[in-house]
Amino acid sequence: MNFCSRCGARVVQRIPEGDSLPRWVCESCNTIHYENPRMIVGCVCEWENRILLCQRAIEPRYGLWTVPAGFLENGETTAAGAERETLEEALARVQIDDLFSLYNLPHINQVYLLFRGRLVDGQVAAGAETLQARLFDETEIPWDELAFVTVRNTLQHYLSDRRTGRFSVHMGTIEPLKKGNEGRREGGNE
Amino acid sequence: MNFCSRCGARVVQRIPEGDSLPRWVCESCNTIHYENPRMIVGCVCEWENRILLCQRAIEPRYGLWTVPAGFLENGETTAAGAERETLEEALARVQIDDLFSLYNLPHINQVYLLFRGRLVDGQVAAGAETLQARLFDETEIPWDELAFVTVRNTLQHYLSDRRTGRFSVHMGTIEPLKKGNEGRREGGNE
Repeated sequence: MNFCSRCGARVVQRIPEGDSLPRWVCESCNTIHYENPRMIVGCVCEWENRILLCQRAIEPRYGLWTVPAGFLENGETTAAGAERETLEEALARVQIDDLFSLYNLPHINQVYLLFRGRLVDGQVAAGAETLQARLFDETEIPWDELAFVTVRNTLQHYLSDRRTGRFSVHMGTIEPLKKGNEGRREGGNE
Repeated sequence: MNFCSRCGARVVQRIPEGDSLPRWVCESCNTIHYENPRMIVGCVCEWENRILLCQRAIEPRYGLWTVPAGFLENGETTAAGAERETLEEALARVQIDDLFSLYNLPHINQVYLLFRGRLVDGQVAAGAETLQARLFDETEIPWDELAFVTVRNTLQHYLSDRRTGRFSVHMGTIEPLKKGNEGRREGGNE
């Protein structure tokens, strides 16, 4: 951030009075420009025991598979955002049930909120950002070609909960790869 | 938004190519300035069956009572944010357990994520934005002096779940007062 989006003057970074963190501040019009994490909302969508996955037609992770998910928009509820993403990415209508997983990605200022849901009519097709939309049996899930660790963990928990017949909310924190680590680390409950 | 925070040029509102919503766009440096909802994180903190509430020393709702809660910061997990807010507002240390409620406030672009937790040592005191921090028995909760409908609903669900001995995650949507309505409406599960 270089300029004040309100008045166009240069901004400086300092800790405002009564605050404890540095913020971008405009010393011309006194606006404080807060920056906060964003939410990614999405859904594990089921149809006749199969799960909807989308093969990404965009970067990052072009060609890899994910559940429908994207940034929550202003004016939208989290469940409505998950429904919209399912419609955009898989041209599919979903009835959202409950929240299923919450993942923190503090290094990139994101929080994932993924729901469970049921497709309304089982119709799926590739949206503009998707190469293919497909329904997968449990045995067919492309574990080695999943786009995000949030998706892998969510699918693992989902299948495990489904076997027991009781779904709960799963929380975790994804941290970036660190030198000497084989893979991404994931906390359990925070 | 009037100016580009990156280059200082005037911004215009239009739908970028491949997008479906109007965004603030800089036609000088081509930056798209997305605006997204923010998260409020907080906690229902318990100590020997009593619940921590803070009397607000700031607007909005000066003088009314709330659970510790505030905006999630960049670089922070949702549970760490709830711990920080508890420390700032009630000078209290809390051990976070599980997510307890998710409330959408789409008219003000906010999502509340409230956890359950247990105070580490039962010590509470007023932070800078708090007039009083106090532990309340179930019978003492000041229902008519609560600051936010999210707090009232969360406390009602919390006490109800505590009686049954089984906590679940509660979701809802808070909509603004409408003409002819007596109070705020709340959806159940979305």
